[in-house]
Amino acid sequence: MATGIWLIGARGSVAVTGLVGAAALRAGLAEPLGCVTELPELRSPALPALADLVFGGHDVADTPLVKKAESLVAAGVLPAGITAALGDELAAAERELRPVPVAGTQADTARLIAADIEDFRRRHDLERVVVVNVASTEPAVAPHPGHTDPASLAEALASTDTVLPASSLNAYAAFTAGCPFVDFTPSTGTRLPALAELALQAGVPYAGNDGKTGETLVKSVLAPMFAMRHLRVRTWSGTNLLGGGDGATLADPAANAAKTASKQRVLSETLGYRPEGTSLIQYVDDIGDFKTAWDLITFSGFLGTTMRMDFTWHGCDSALAAPLVLDLARLTAAAHAAGRSGPLTELAFFFKDPLGDVPHALHEQWAALTGFVRGLSDV
Amino acid sequence: MATGIWLIGARGSVAVTGLVGAAALRAGLAEPLGCVTELPELRSPALPALADLVFGGHDVADTPLVKKAESLVAAGVLPAGITAALGDELAAAERELRPVPVAGTQADTARLIAADIEDFRRRHDLERVVVVNVASTEPAVAPHPGHTDPASLAEALASTDTVLPASSLNAYAAFTAGCPFVDFTPSTGTRLPALAELALQAGVPYAGNDGKTGETLVKSVLAPMFAMRHLRVRTWSGTNLLGGGDGATLADPAANAAKTASKQRVLSETLGYRPEGTSLIQYVDDIGDFKTAWDLITFSGFLGTTMRMDFTWHGCDSALAAPLVLDLARLTAAAHAAGRSGPLTELAFFFKDPLGDVPHALHEQWAALTGFVRGLSDV
Amino acid sequence: MATGIWLIGARGSVAVTGLVGAAALRAGLAEPLGCVTELPELRSPALPALADLVFGGHDVADTPLVKKAESLVAAGVLPAGITAALGDELAAAERELRPVPVAGTQADTARLIAADIEDFRRRHDLERVVVVNVASTEPAVAPHPGHTDPASLAEALASTDTVLPASSLNAYAAFTAGCPFVDFTPSTGTRLPALAELALQAGVPYAGNDGKTGETLVKSVLAPMFAMRHLRVRTWSGTNLLGGGDGATLADPAANAAKTASKQRVLSETLGYRPEGTSLIQYVDDIGDFKTAWDLITFSGFLGTTMRMDFTWHGCDSALAAPLVLDLARLTAAAHAAGRSGPLTELAFFFKDPLGDVPHALHEQWAALTGFVRGLSDV
Amino acid sequence: MATGIWLIGARGSVAVTGLVGAAALRAGLAEPLGCVTELPELRSPALPALADLVFGGHDVADTPLVKKAESLVAAGVLPAGITAALGDELAAAERELRPVPVAGTQADTARLIAADIEDFRRRHDLERVVVVNVASTEPAVAPHPGHTDPASLAEALASTDTVLPASSLNAYAAFTAGCPFVDFTPSTGTRLPALAELALQAGVPYAGNDGKTGETLVKSVLAPMFAMRHLRVRTWSGTNLLGGGDGATLADPAANAAKTASKQRVLSETLGYRPEGTSLIQYVDDIGDFKTAWDLITFSGFLGTTMRMDFTWHGCDSALAAPLVLDLARLTAAAHAAGRSGPLTELAFFFKDPLGDVPHALHEQWAALTGFVRGLSDV
Ligand SMILES: NC(=O)c1ccc[n+]([C@@H]2O[C@H](COP(=O)([O-])OP(=O)(O)OC[C@H]3O[C@@H](n4cnc5c(N)ncnc54)[C@H](O)[C@@H]3O)[C@@H](O)[C@H]2O)c1
Ligand SMILES: NC(=O)c1ccc[n+]([C@@H]2O[C@H](COP(=O)([O-])OP(=O)(O)OC[C@H]3O[C@@H](n4cnc5c(N)ncnc54)[C@H](O)[C@@H]3O)[C@@H](O)[C@H]2O)c1
Ligand SMILES: NC(=O)c1ccc[n+]([C@@H]2O[C@H](COP(=O)([O-])OP(=O)(O)OC[C@H]3O[C@@H](n4cnc5c(N)ncnc54)[C@H](O)[C@@H]3O)[C@@H](O)[C@H]2O)c1
Ligand SMILES: NC(=O)c1ccc[n+]([C@@H]2O[C@H](COP(=O)([O-])OP(=O)(O)OC[C@H]3O[C@@H](n4cnc5c(N)ncnc54)[C@H](O)[C@@H]3O)[C@@H](O)[C@H]2O)c1
Ligand code: NA
Ligand code: NA
Repeated sequence: MATGIWLIGARGSVAVTGLVGAAALRAGLAEPLGCVTELPELRSPALPALADLVFGGHDVADTPLVKKAESLVAAGVLPAGITAALGDELAAAERELRPVPVAGTQADTARLIAADIEDFRRRHDLERVVVVNVASTEPAVAPHPGHTDPASLAEALASTDTVLPASSLNAYAAFTAGCPFVDFTPSTGTRLPALAELALQAGVPYAGNDGKTGETLVKSVLAPMFAMRHLRVRTWSGTNLLGGGDGATLADPAANAAKTASKQRVLSETLGYRPEGTSLIQYVDDIGDFKTAWDLITFSGFLGTTMRMDFTWHGCDSALAAPLVLDLARLTAAAHAAGRSGPLTELAFFFKDPLGDVPHALHEQWAALTGFVRGLSDV
Repeated sequence: MATGIWLIGARGSVAVTGLVGAAALRAGLAEPLGCVTELPELRSPALPALADLVFGGHDVADTPLVKKAESLVAAGVLPAGITAALGDELAAAERELRPVPVAGTQADTARLIAADIEDFRRRHDLERVVVVNVASTEPAVAPHPGHTDPASLAEALASTDTVLPASSLNAYAAFTAGCPFVDFTPSTGTRLPALAELALQAGVPYAGNDGKTGETLVKSVLAPMFAMRHLRVRTWSGTNLLGGGDGATLADPAANAAKTASKQRVLSETLGYRPEGTSLIQYVDDIGDFKTAWDLITFSGFLGTTMRMDFTWHGCDSALAAPLVLDLARLTAAAHAAGRSGPLTELAFFFKDPLGDVPHALHEQWAALTGFVRGLSDV
Repeated sequence: MATGIWLIGARGSVAVTGLVGAAALRAGLAEPLGCVTELPELRSPALPALADLVFGGHDVADTPLVKKAESLVAAGVLPAGITAALGDELAAAERELRPVPVAGTQADTARLIAADIEDFRRRHDLERVVVVNVASTEPAVAPHPGHTDPASLAEALASTDTVLPASSLNAYAAFTAGCPFVDFTPSTGTRLPALAELALQAGVPYAGNDGKTGETLVKSVLAPMFAMRHLRVRTWSGTNLLGGGDGATLADPAANAAKTASKQRVLSETLGYRPEGTSLIQYVDDIGDFKTAWDLITFSGFLGTTMRMDFTWHGCDSALAAPLVLDLARLTAAAHAAGRSGPLTELAFFFKDPLGDVPHALHEQWAALTGFVRGLSDV
Repeated sequence: MATGIWLIGARGSVAVTGLVGAAALRAGLAEPLGCVTELPELRSPALPALADLVFGGHDVADTPLVKKAESLVAAGVLPAGITAALGDELAAAERELRPVPVAGTQADTARLIAADIEDFRRRHDLERVVVVNVASTEPAVAPHPGHTDPASLAEALASTDTVLPASSLNAYAAFTAGCPFVDFTPSTGTRLPALAELALQAGVPYAGNDGKTGETLVKSVLAPMFAMRHLRVRTWSGTNLLGGGDGATLADPAANAAKTASKQRVLSETLGYRPEGTSLIQYVDDIGDFKTAWDLITFSGFLGTTMRMDFTWHGCDSALAAPLVLDLARLTAAAHAAGRSGPLTELAFFFKDPLGDVPHALHEQWAALTGFVRGLSDV
């Protein structure tokens, strides 16, 4: 049965790549490369089919989907000719996008957001709608008393204060509409006590944070390698050059800080100590959607001998992210169907900064993920 | 109780680094970095203590140990001052080394090898001796009817034919002396039906082949990463520049071929298909013991988008190999003590070209290894 | 006035990129990036204008130009939409291409080649035609007595022997037709005493060999840097991964050898000694026209301290080569107009394996080139 | 005849490497690798011999020379055993080092500095003394009216204001003592109108700024390569990881800014435009004296095709810098002997941020340098 994906940031690179890609897969124009839920180990009747996904969403921008898709073709993210081949599907998707509602209080804004989602669900007779945040990264949030518990939050939102950042307000709206929520961004999202509590009350699951698509993915296999071999990592220093919409946002040091911190967490978690070095993000407009990262790792082995490795990663961020958005929507929908609520810590595989006290080694996250999917099918 | 390590190639870089390193660890001069059996997950009372290892061995060369150790200091493999600090230990070890025996038939040679090992065991009242092959890589062996079964082998060895390459003759001698055997090289070693059968008859375990210390180690975590993310690897092409004794041997295309093949096996085994590209070894005298490898990987993701990564690995081969030799000797000794015989497929973690039909992903090999050690302790 | 370029290998990647690019420049669709004769330092009224170049040529293949151009678009070498934009120009160029003539003796074949060139010149009323070899790399040639001088050559060609490889037979035909000749390939071309003599007799200039477009270009500035800083290069080891038509040819060790040798020559010539290491070429189909090269350089400085650098070069071979073909045709035509004959050693800037005893440092070659162009204008 | 080098920052890494290295060369323990004045093209009787250099200097630190030298041995900058071999020379040099004088006004401090230099000259009967600044990088200087001309400066220095940063005060002292001055650092040094004027009045030459030893050196040959080939550089982004004393100073953003700016200047000067990207410096203690830099360069060629190269540079900063300090002292001494005063713009070859409106391409700087040395010999 049909499952909705409601995208926050629906006109952005990740969203449009995901939406166009799902249409291309449905049309048989491509193989589902990059979709982990299409691997033999994870395929499951408990997941909604790729072909059963229906897209809608909010965005503060109003660039037409087709125009955005064409710019992604020009950038080499989407294959040539795809917008022509999928003209009807894109037009249909365009009709499901809405401007971000504005109201006098955040409580009222949340009601309008929820109403848009409700309408979407009804229009398409969807079994459920998963709300996925792929909007621009926000700065860290300032503490507010309303963050503590659902009651204080409800009260605070009814004031004219800006209590919640957009990511969290969308999570709030999703929960009140009975929808699962996925945060693919490093923004605050569900990470406030009041929202965690609310999700449990609403009986909905959520997942996050910050999709793991490049340098951190590589770290999550290389750091365990050093650990398993008892090699001591001394320095791990990374530089990420990226352009695109997200790059421009991250050029803002405030947004950047959140991302940078989440990029080194995998090291201390898998090594048990914190090597020297940081992970930098630099905005270079010309680089566009194809990020280039360089990491230098120095390490000590037997009798203290110092050695080193470095790697460069030249990845298309949106092409890496989009299939994971589809995976997450399917997995979260299935979890909801199976009656799960609260944080889906078993989905750490997908995130740089996963919820809960979970392993950061990719293979351990993979084990958790395959166990999770098996569990769904057993239901 | 004391356990012997009998090294074939005892005056080579790996052997001397291992022997000096074990002495340095015993003297408290270094931490056991690089020794995986010293990780919390693998420490076990079932393993002989590092301090209880006693070294002896054969070599065709007669370079004094101290001289070889000094050249390893000059090359940056061993720390400055170590030969002075361990003068007595090195002198003692020197007394345990023997020239490779020569006799009219390989049967007689094997008897002399076994006798040297026996003497070593008796001299030091060792509970058991593990024979470890760290001699120069040999060319691939020519087929011979004697390889089929123990009886044909015994008969063939009694002739004046060269039936077995040195690695296999040493395995034969070890088995007839009741000793476990570890082959750290890509040479033939135990990989002949007659020897596999003989090990079972003798009730001794064996492990191999070809220590996994650099590029292949990295492959064994990166290839599974691509697989787990459903990214299709198109090209994986590697260049290995190395000098040192082993580099010179591998400059011989015949020896090189064996190594090169074993270096790509991890890809087809973990990906399920064979990407384009090869792994080259080039001898560059000036590079010495610090190998530099470069690998280029191109891969396709969502909607066919092509991406790439490359890495350089600048590792000290002997410093990476030596602690694994200590690990393998300890693990194989413990397996013998626990009554195991035949191939120790659970030790695939250590090898480029592991025995048996085993996983090649490092994390799966790690799971097998930790299970193996737990099993030993349960005994 | 109009100048012809007669391409040997006119349906290959370099030829078609050059031909399409010249049309695109004429149509104002692109800037002349990559064309060094369009730099302020080299622009000269003595050179035929880019817009005055007319293309024709021979090829053993019969792939239509448009089809080849489209495959270059798909490969990212030519921009999308270019074949549609230049439909008429490509159709016109197609009409100027001829199959490689075949006759009973090489003398007769040469006459037919010359006749095709003559026809081309007459059809378009060209002031002169420069013959440019961009055909597949040939294996090294076997010595033959006909190579010694023009008279022996004429006699030998009249026999049924295969006296000359295609590259040299084309040079011969060019010279007898009074045309200058450029060899952009590592093939033998003009490098036989008989042909050198013949060019002087015919009063025509020639240039070569082997266009310098990637790794060797970088070497020609980095090697002088080490020399000027009195740093001793110890190892310089390169790996070139390439696909495409040329890659497939070079997978043949015989053709490969010629290229590999010419790639290291720059080192001994600029450093004054030969560092360790080689430059490898490996064919990887998937890499296509975008070559990736990796070079490792180790060097010693003050008090013998060892240091290192490495670089990767990810270049589009045809996009780097094609504008140089246009440059070379213009420069060689102007030299001919100025009455030059014999080897144009001042064009070493363009070649991996330049004619004559010339400097290999790029800046010295640049000085020679600018001097050459100034000389032309002074005439 | 003997020439003095008075080092500001005489106990730092560059100074001590230079001082020990000069002694080692004099003792015949090493070849003069890294010393460009020992190349055939630059050897000249006009330069004081390496063996005729005598060292003295100031430092705010009091670490004994031998201790510093030993730490440089441990770091792999100086060869093992060198402090033992040069015990007497190091003891003699130690006796020539003085603490930085302090007085109530900067005028008085300058007089004390000059007096120390004078004493040094007299003690060793030196023909002349070249003052070389190799002290820690300073933050940019605040404007002060005293900077305008010698008269205002003299007046201001007599006040209790801090008018000049240390680098400039040392230049002032040098000039008043009739000594040439070399600024190897990115600090202000002579770059104030009053000091430029003063040097002319005193009839002494000076050189600077900021020794070119790594990433910028490579840039100064690669950027001209792109220019000569008419390839448009789009992005040039660099990351420099370094430890050591200088690294710690540069971790201070104020000092860092000066260095970062001077590192990109070569690009705009040789390309004629400013590509995107910046050059970052990051302090990583563990990296020590062996800096690792990574640069990514993207560029457009024929018909706009985008290509890329990257390089890593793993250089020992002090081993690269020290021989240049010796070169600069010899060249500046010879210029002084030849009657030169004011900025030695012909020494741009040595600097990241050269004085005057000079070429930044290394080969043009080399031409200027060789011309300069020839000019000296002609005198
Ligand atoms: N691409 C990756 O590999 C990757 C990986 C991890 C995380 N992410 C995160 O995913 C997010 C999207 O990345 P992108 O490359 O698509 O960025 P993008 O800039 O292309 O798209 C973001 C979209 O969000 C919209 N937006 C901004 N504020 C909004 C709001 N309050 N409500 C609704 N829409 C809003 C913008 O108008 C824009 O269309 C970013 O937060 C990024 O950090 C991406
Ligand atoms: N160092 C690593 O990282 C690594 C990794 C995997 C495998 N290996 C293998 O380990 C082996 C040793 O490597 P190394 O670097 O120490 O090489 P090495 O050349 O330094 O040492 C080999 C030693 O074996 C001796 N030898 C040769 N033939 C012999 C024989 N028939 N009997 C006894 N001794 C003999 C030689 O004299 C020499 O002393 C090689 O086969 C190598 O391929 C090493
Ligand atoms: N692309 C570069 O950067 C570069 C640099 C230096 C040299 N080169 C040389 O330029 C040449 C062309 O390279 P490419 O990439 O275009 O190769 P390609 O394989 O795409 O084209 C070669 C063409 O030559 C034709 N050909 C073969 N033999 C011929 C003959 N006897 N007469 C006429 N045509 C013949 C082939 O049919 C083909 O169309 C090669 O020799 C290559 O080594 C190229
Ligand atoms: N090493 C290189 O490759 C390189 C290249 C270009 C420039 N430089 C510059 O050379 C300088 C020295 O570098 P280093 O690596 O030797 O640094 P370092 O930190 O090892 O040495 C600097 C020395 O200067 C001393 N010092 C500081 N302030 C002083 C003052 N006011 N008077 C006298 N001494 C003072 C310090 O005590 C220290 O001993 C730095 O400014 C650096 O930026 C170095
Ligand atoms: Na790299
Ligand atoms: Na690199």
